[in-house]
Amino acid sequence: MYKNNGVVLVLSGPSGAGKSSLIKEIADDIGEYYFSISTTTRKPRDGEVDGVDYYFVSEEEFKKDIKDEYFLEYALVHGNYYGTSIKPVKEALSKGKLVIFDIDVQGNTAITNRLGDITTSVFITPPTLSELRKRLQNRSTDTKEVIERRLVMAKMEIQRISEYDFIVVNDDLKVAAEVLKQIAKTARLKVPINKINDFVHKWEDKE
Amino acid sequence: MYKNNGVVLVLSGPSGAGKSSLIKEIADDIGEYYFSISTTTRKPRDGEVDGVDYYFVSEEEFKKDIKDEYFLEYALVHGNYYGTSIKPVKEALSKGKLVIFDIDVQGNTAITNRLGDITTSVFITPPTLSELRKRLQNRSTDTKEVIERRLVMAKMEIQRISEYDFIVVNDDLKVAAEVLKQIAKTARLKVPINKINDFVHKWEDKE
Repeated sequence: MYKNNGVVLVLSGPSGAGKSSLIKEIADDIGEYYFSISTTTRKPRDGEVDGVDYYFVSEEEFKKDIKDEYFLEYALVHGNYYGTSIKPVKEALSKGKLVIFDIDVQGNTAITNRLGDITTSVFITPPTLSELRKRLQNRSTDTKEVIERRLVMAKMEIQRISEYDFIVVNDDLKVAAEVLKQIAKTARLKVPINKINDFVHKWEDKE
Repeated sequence: MYKNNGVVLVLSGPSGAGKSSLIKEIADDIGEYYFSISTTTRKPRDGEVDGVDYYFVSEEEFKKDIKDEYFLEYALVHGNYYGTSIKPVKEALSKGKLVIFDIDVQGNTAITNRLGDITTSVFITPPTLSELRKRLQNRSTDTKEVIERRLVMAKMEIQRISEYDFIVVNDDLKVAAEVLKQIAKTARLKVPINKINDFVHKWEDKE
């Protein structure tokens, strides 16, 4: 009953919440997982690698994939398309992996609508908005304009955190990682609806 | 954020699924909890103690409590009323306890509707219907008629297990207890909607 079920863990939260650090922190303790890589029409930034950070495609390719219904979800953000291809997710799920998404609030809605029975969603946030500002300024990878845009986005997203199963306040990385690890392990126990139906069927059949 | 939140763990499943044994098994490892005691108009059976197994009341008292909206949920089963009083639940929640309900499918619906933001629901079941029959026969506390009625109930309830967050198949008690312990610990991380709203409010305010 508990084995070989692919399940989904959605992580949302503002850029600067520490999602990547948290995933690194818990990676060794949560069993086999597949980190979903998004597809985008945005140009790669310095150091970004195709197939690692994103699948970088042309707008033409992206629009063809939309038409062919290749996306679990997609969105147009600041003029660039971002989407999640179904195929690698399905593959990982069929292998019983924990599929982790780093995705925004809209993406969470789309995934929960499609895969709600096996999805656990977590909103990760810095303790305060001013702490988020500080972190974004300290990492100095973004221009002032980008930072302001991220903060506006964060303010909008935090209004919707009640849509999430869990909220993790990333104040101390170690503490937040323990909490997230606990959630990820329990996420493994979700059973897909088709397996439930099989179980009910067999449950009565055996008498 | 994670401390002092009262949360709810609903356990459902047929009589004979092993709910009581499981609760005993995990009791020492899940922190302070309050096991919700139902109120009933049914007469106490041999060995049943008022305030431990149930609160035993008259039909008149029960109906007055319904009128006074004292119940979180109630139902009429085989001619007897069963209900959950709000007051002790609220008290336990305000003390940050894990409130555990052993309740049927209808009860789960009622509680999830009222306290969904802090509720984790688990359906506990023996591996098969014939195993359930065997267990009920072996414990020999029930007459043949009662056993048959329980089996009919179980068949009806199992049709609705997809309404639960988790399913625990109690084949091996130790294994099932480990799974339930994991779920109970994660249930502790749920945050009530009013605390979320407070958090969001403060989150922005501090800037």
